[in-house]
Amino acid sequence: MDFQEIINRIYNEVKPMTVYGKIADYIPALQQVSSGHLGISIQTLDKKSYCKGDCNIPFSIQSISKVFGLTLAYSKLGSKLWDRMGKEPSGTSFNSLVQLEHEQGIPRNPFINAGALVVSDIILSHCNDPYSELIDFVREVCNDPNVNYNDSVAASEKETGDRNYALAYFMKSYGNIKNPVEDVLSFYFKQCSIEMDCRNLARSFLYLVNHGTNPFIGKNILNASQTKRISALMITSGMYNEAGDFAYRVGLPGKSGVGGGIVAFIPQKLSIAVWSPALNMSGNSLAGIEVLERFTSYTGDSVF
Amino acid sequence: MDFQEIINRIYNEVKPMTVYGKIADYIPALQQVSSGHLGISIQTLDKKSYCKGDCNIPFSIQSISKVFGLTLAYSKLGSKLWDRMGKEPSGTSFNSLVQLEHEQGIPRNPFINAGALVVSDIILSHCNDPYSELIDFVREVCNDPNVNYNDSVAASEKETGDRNYALAYFMKSYGNIKNPVEDVLSFYFKQCSIEMDCRNLARSFLYLVNHGTNPFIGKNILNASQTKRISALMITSGMYNEAGDFAYRVGLPGKSGVGGGIVAFIPQKLSIAVWSPALNMSGNSLAGIEVLERFTSYTGDSVF
Amino acid sequence: MDFQEIINRIYNEVKPMTVYGKIADYIPALQQVSSGHLGISIQTLDKKSYCKGDCNIPFSIQSISKVFGLTLAYSKLGSKLWDRMGKEPSGTSFNSLVQLEHEQGIPRNPFINAGALVVSDIILSHCNDPYSELIDFVREVCNDPNVNYNDSVAASEKETGDRNYALAYFMKSYGNIKNPVEDVLSFYFKQCSIEMDCRNLARSFLYLVNHGTNPFIGKNILNASQTKRISALMITSGMYNEAGDFAYRVGLPGKSGVGGGIVAFIPQKLSIAVWSPALNMSGNSLAGIEVLERFTSYTGDSVF
Amino acid sequence: MDFQEIINRIYNEVKPMTVYGKIADYIPALQQVSSGHLGISIQTLDKKSYCKGDCNIPFSIQSISKVFGLTLAYSKLGSKLWDRMGKEPSGTSFNSLVQLEHEQGIPRNPFINAGALVVSDIILSHCNDPYSELIDFVREVCNDPNVNYNDSVAASEKETGDRNYALAYFMKSYGNIKNPVEDVLSFYFKQCSIEMDCRNLARSFLYLVNHGTNPFIGKNILNASQTKRISALMITSGMYNEAGDFAYRVGLPGKSGVGGGIVAFIPQKLSIAVWSPALNMSGNSLAGIEVLERFTSYTGDSVF
Repeated sequence: MDFQEIINRIYNEVKPMTVYGKIADYIPALQQVSSGHLGISIQTLDKKSYCKGDCNIPFSIQSISKVFGLTLAYSKLGSKLWDRMGKEPSGTSFNSLVQLEHEQGIPRNPFINAGALVVSDIILSHCNDPYSELIDFVREVCNDPNVNYNDSVAASEKETGDRNYALAYFMKSYGNIKNPVEDVLSFYFKQCSIEMDCRNLARSFLYLVNHGTNPFIGKNILNASQTKRISALMITSGMYNEAGDFAYRVGLPGKSGVGGGIVAFIPQKLSIAVWSPALNMSGNSLAGIEVLERFTSYTGDSVF
Repeated sequence: MDFQEIINRIYNEVKPMTVYGKIADYIPALQQVSSGHLGISIQTLDKKSYCKGDCNIPFSIQSISKVFGLTLAYSKLGSKLWDRMGKEPSGTSFNSLVQLEHEQGIPRNPFINAGALVVSDIILSHCNDPYSELIDFVREVCNDPNVNYNDSVAASEKETGDRNYALAYFMKSYGNIKNPVEDVLSFYFKQCSIEMDCRNLARSFLYLVNHGTNPFIGKNILNASQTKRISALMITSGMYNEAGDFAYRVGLPGKSGVGGGIVAFIPQKLSIAVWSPALNMSGNSLAGIEVLERFTSYTGDSVF
Repeated sequence: MDFQEIINRIYNEVKPMTVYGKIADYIPALQQVSSGHLGISIQTLDKKSYCKGDCNIPFSIQSISKVFGLTLAYSKLGSKLWDRMGKEPSGTSFNSLVQLEHEQGIPRNPFINAGALVVSDIILSHCNDPYSELIDFVREVCNDPNVNYNDSVAASEKETGDRNYALAYFMKSYGNIKNPVEDVLSFYFKQCSIEMDCRNLARSFLYLVNHGTNPFIGKNILNASQTKRISALMITSGMYNEAGDFAYRVGLPGKSGVGGGIVAFIPQKLSIAVWSPALNMSGNSLAGIEVLERFTSYTGDSVF
Repeated sequence: MDFQEIINRIYNEVKPMTVYGKIADYIPALQQVSSGHLGISIQTLDKKSYCKGDCNIPFSIQSISKVFGLTLAYSKLGSKLWDRMGKEPSGTSFNSLVQLEHEQGIPRNPFINAGALVVSDIILSHCNDPYSELIDFVREVCNDPNVNYNDSVAASEKETGDRNYALAYFMKSYGNIKNPVEDVLSFYFKQCSIEMDCRNLARSFLYLVNHGTNPFIGKNILNASQTKRISALMITSGMYNEAGDFAYRVGLPGKSGVGGGIVAFIPQKLSIAVWSPALNMSGNSLAGIEVLERFTSYTGDSVF
């Protein structure tokens, strides 16, 4: 089975679908992106690389960055993390306050916004230089020192971030945010603003493919058991309110962002990143999900 | 790695924990079971069998039967099934009406009670002799013609089944139950009353291990893609409100029942069934989850 | 101030609005009624009577009957009633299950369907001949021995009553329905099927105007304090999810039904019944509310 | 009937109950108050005044101030107010976000915190000097130029006001807060910090008793119809999640605050203020409600 042939075929089939869906328009920086883009990149654990389409155009990874934040916090705090958030699918929208109220300020999982804010709060409390530590971590896992935050995207997010302010103040009222809300939000939006292209994005998840060890520099980030656990969280909660459907159609742990990126992986084998900016009703890249469903169908390979 | 050694070790470690938790007591038949039991059975796709403890004592499989019902309905109706229920984790208790009202009588997934009632309704509409078809199906997949319903358990469930009546009438008010509520409930409770021992239970899930084909008689039940989809549903929604935690700790698709049984599997490799009647706060076998977490930790083998 | 002149004027102003709104169509008996009807009847405590329009056409009083049921149960059980239901506005739709689940099977108040079902259950437990006692009570308060149930309406309601079955079974699962669900529903739908015309409906509420004593026969039904309490429940919860708006616009205790009737009253002074079958979005008579708002505006008389 | 005798009797009966309940302790200023206080003051429309107990000790009126804010906003904006909030009882806790999310940032009524924040936002947009206008309004209605804000209480509230920040940001995310959140909160907490004694508090509600006209200076604030409407809102929503019970027991429009004050009134007749700092489970003065229930029972006078 030749991965290049497979992604060429999928690219041709899915490219026409990039006209459907809707670009995220809540901040200008995201809204400016044109919708026709489609990029697919596969990185195998044995260092092979396959790309098709717009694989070298950087885009805003947005919520995908929550996996990096979680990894950093988990490596600092270990399982004490779960005193402050749950591990269950939310059953409600990614930025819902209902669940949060019902469960007394404890977010259901680290991938809904509330959970990611708690993760940011934890990073602020446990890192001397959180902004540098996070971006250095990301540069290491994708093996590219040029990856960076986009300050204007972060600033723009913050201006329109009223709902996230609400979530943070709400959790603070339950004692589940320790740092000043302003600081937590600044860090959170900075994290979301990280820009990568498909190639880098696929590479950056190889540490999860590889039982927690960064394959480029051999550095151990998480142990095998911790890696299993993060992968499990991705499959049950990684795709906003569409995690069940994604698991059903694709059958891989994955994480999406409103910038139109999705990354997924097959443990011990490969990671695959897709980028196409137009989103479906659930806020996930419409074409991106199509690509990934075809990938596991054509290769017959998923975690199941 | 010797599976027998592993389950012997796990059995010894976990046996003392069988004193914790609480036996399901809502019907006498379940309440009578003594709590000290622990049985573990592994069945590999290459026909090897490993057992330890109470593997030959039949118990009420309860909600585990929802996988059999779903398989039967899915094989009859295909993906049209999803017009009448969702595929997303529920985020609320297994018998909650809140989500159901919010989503207009469409259950979130086939493993919450509401979804299983819709599955029962579909089976009633599409089978000439539903009671026989279901039990024949179960006998075939576990390769044991003696597996049967327990009529007194079914009758007892029905007497105390007010909440399930409420769910069914509620969905009927939205047009999502087509047959008389009385008939749907009778079938549903009969399905839940099926009794199996650990050995049979592990064997009965080998068709999911084997890409949808019953390995005992070579009969094709589902295709590989359909099997992937049911496995995905099990990992996101198979453990009541604890699916995320189960995926996190165990990392396998699984299904539990209030009788204290849990079955899980590694695609293409093996299935494992555990039985221990005392339940944790989420209604899952307390010792059962301990066994499965150790199994994937000691073997280093999960879907991730 | 001449009441006849006032209702003549209001009738002329509001009659054109009877073309708006929507007839209840969930059962044939209600659906058949033509929408143009408008009847207004005032009955004063000093035995004067003012009518305009369709005041002699009997209609289905539906949920208005909940006040009669509550009065009967309250006179039997006293304040022990409130062990089984609350006195707070519901904040959600009249037949919602969400609140009920949140509060463990205890309905928020006696005027939502769940509460009225508990009231029916109480009447069944405390009356030897509940069907006769209820209709005799209603005949007495309106001083007309010909008022009756409509059996075909009751039967028709029961056929389409799945949501109410769901509510009853749900509360039974919490132990808050004592009699068989079938019996409770039969009685409840029979109560809802009572037919009255506007004149009788206005007369039938004079006992609440009169501090609890039936003014026609001098019979004491409730004491002054109990009457105050039922009146208070009507003003906070009598108009489905529109009680606040009704209090705001009309300023009187009132009760509505999906048959298009509304009855309201000024303590110590008068009762007023309106009938117009087309309903607004909240299920209350659209023209009926217009009539009552004008009545308290033109007379300057409300409870405030 | 002699009001002085009645309140003397009630004072003696209820004074022993002031040991029950719990002082609000979320800010030091409220926590310091000792719990034994009980003050009762009646002010009649014909200028008579009756006092008993601690009627001259100023206390923090807290949420009672929402009526003043609402009156000011209503007199500025008229019924356009209701484009930005509802008039229905909330059915949930006074500071709940659930309802707010369900209804897209539109608070259910002006007396829950979210609604009062929108009222503050409106006052900020429509007054040149909102802080002066509000306190001048309050001084006029109670006819005492010495009434004032308590700056340290306001500052203290703000420090612990995370939940209210969350509410404001949440509504801002829906576009229902127009001014900076910081400004809205500052004004809101200042409004809540107003201090009055029982005598002043009773006097300050005479404009509602008097169809909207300030009886001390003859100034028209609201017309009769507007006054009816505010009174109606008080009876359906004035007592947090206990409005139904208060209407049931007391039968008067009223408003409470966590400082332990409650004010209620009989239109065209009198207003009555009670202060006792220890609160019941719903956050209303425990002894205060007892006093008011006895008052309407002993006098036989309520709006019903």
